[in-house]
Amino acid sequence: MRAAVMRGARLVVDTVPEPTPGPGEVLVKTLACGICGSDLHALRHAPKMVEAARESGMPFTLDVGRDVVMGHEFCAEILEFGPDTQRAFRPGERVVSVPLAVGANGVQGIGYSNDYPGGYGERMVLSELFVLPVPNGLATEHAALTEPMAVGVHAVAKSRFEPGDAPLVVGCGPVGLAVIAALKLRAAEPIVAADFSPVRRALAERMGAHVVVDPARERPIDAWQVAAGARPAVIFECVGVPGLLDALMRDAPREARVVVAGVCMEDDRIRPMLGINKELTVQFVLGYTPLEFADTLRDIAEGRIPVASLVTGRVGVDGVPGAFKALAQPDTHAKILVEPWH
Amino acid sequence: MRAAVMRGARLVVDTVPEPTPGPGEVLVKTLACGICGSDLHALRHAPKMVEAARESGMPFTLDVGRDVVMGHEFCAEILEFGPDTQRAFRPGERVVSVPLAVGANGVQGIGYSNDYPGGYGERMVLSELFVLPVPNGLATEHAALTEPMAVGVHAVAKSRFEPGDAPLVVGCGPVGLAVIAALKLRAAEPIVAADFSPVRRALAERMGAHVVVDPARERPIDAWQVAAGARPAVIFECVGVPGLLDALMRDAPREARVVVAGVCMEDDRIRPMLGINKELTVQFVLGYTPLEFADTLRDIAEGRIPVASLVTGRVGVDGVPGAFKALAQPDTHAKILVEPWH
Repeated sequence: MRAAVMRGARLVVDTVPEPTPGPGEVLVKTLACGICGSDLHALRHAPKMVEAARESGMPFTLDVGRDVVMGHEFCAEILEFGPDTQRAFRPGERVVSVPLAVGANGVQGIGYSNDYPGGYGERMVLSELFVLPVPNGLATEHAALTEPMAVGVHAVAKSRFEPGDAPLVVGCGPVGLAVIAALKLRAAEPIVAADFSPVRRALAERMGAHVVVDPARERPIDAWQVAAGARPAVIFECVGVPGLLDALMRDAPREARVVVAGVCMEDDRIRPMLGINKELTVQFVLGYTPLEFADTLRDIAEGRIPVASLVTGRVGVDGVPGAFKALAQPDTHAKILVEPWH
Repeated sequence: MRAAVMRGARLVVDTVPEPTPGPGEVLVKTLACGICGSDLHALRHAPKMVEAARESGMPFTLDVGRDVVMGHEFCAEILEFGPDTQRAFRPGERVVSVPLAVGANGVQGIGYSNDYPGGYGERMVLSELFVLPVPNGLATEHAALTEPMAVGVHAVAKSRFEPGDAPLVVGCGPVGLAVIAALKLRAAEPIVAADFSPVRRALAERMGAHVVVDPARERPIDAWQVAAGARPAVIFECVGVPGLLDALMRDAPREARVVVAGVCMEDDRIRPMLGINKELTVQFVLGYTPLEFADTLRDIAEGRIPVASLVTGRVGVDGVPGAFKALAQPDTHAKILVEPWH
């Protein structure tokens, strides 16, 4: 099949072996797959990512010397079933899934695996166990946003967000926008959000931000202070570049919770005394639970998470390398979908 | 009066001006004052400490170009009252206090101030508001341990410790020992504690640790795993040296809470991916609340915090510089008390 392939530190379009479903697995056709910022990071920092995964004792890892078909934010269509499957879906039915496969070699991340190609290819193999049907009437492109939106739902849940807490969202790329949507879902107010890009600030407002800030003109924490006063601060770091955590620890008010939702694959420097003096909490977050994923799908389907404005581009497999380049400029895009059948 | 004085980055014994109590303040005679590891750090890193305090927006700061009489873990005796005081204490009565003074220039840290000398001098001025009487029968040297023990009580409270959580205490200096005592007070079990020093490991056992580990022979997390299995991990960093937070983030199990109670005044390097992959919480802590301080005094007086073995040395003012040197070798001492009347 055709796929955009991470080969070494390059992204190339090539023909790769067809995936075949093993026991408990289903073969699906990729209908749409979002390009995630983590994939941009992974292309640059794959060896670091693998090393950190190994040092973290994560169950899956990958060989960066072999091909990887990335893409873990997908909506797909059932093609056929492997052995030992329940077959609770009809061929042609649209589905989503957490990007995890439970195969012979244990758990693997679909899209970050040498064995399970992700959604930047025409076909994928999923674990039937994790497959969820897309509700009738929900557009494929919106169903494909379940994964990135679930990231925001999870980040807010892990922050132990309570009524009265006042959030500041730093960075309004897909992760920040998902966090804003999840905060809105909890009726948080005011939601203050910061991004250098006017396009992204406009999207932040559409997702539910009450106050948006351009950090080039005003310190986000100052805008937050005006809007939130002395309320408990929950600061979402949704960028993932070295130095930002330290800056947020410097700016955070006393006892703030800093939620690290941006994926920084490089080493970082902090000044512990800033955390100590203000008794900060730094909560690192990743992913979501299967239940949060299913809830997010339902919230999107029922219009409680307004995803319509998030898709800013569409490409076929051939367009993936160009889309990666375009996304490196944060000014234009939120989410670009890969439609491998294009 | 005679005092051990921080002058530049040196500790000298000299005669300094007598403190005089202002409105709402009392003059006290220092009976005993523990030497805190933070004071050793402060002597080496005072400019960094001041810079971090300013950047943290802390209410008080100090001029490192002027003399500072350190010492914030004290038991004292009432001498006389300043104007506008309640005089609820008799002269000669023994008292303790959180080391805070509310003076004309706002809140200041007693022992980290140019205006309020701490317990390494013969006399101090306290805010009457914060003064607590020492219960009859409680030894002065044990009352002086209220402050460092309260640090442990607070660290455990901020960790959101719950029954079933399994603690690992890394570093069994005074902070680690206080954390162990506070965990014991909550009937935590098993309490696993690690320190390179056999003296400190023995003290850890006396304070309530069920398992002690020599990191030179076994990874603390491995001993913890044997003792605690899959229970939620709460890891207390009670050392405060660069690199340790990163090592604990590397070793921590998934979803562990790492409580930073060690005071690291230097910059530090972390790998955010370790935190992200395992969804770690890093909780920085400092000090205690006035209520925790008062509770700790009562718990010591009633024998629920067994402090008897913690005092390993006693010096007069002249002996403070030598005691600082001795404490830089973690093998011998837990707490050295300064008795300026000696």
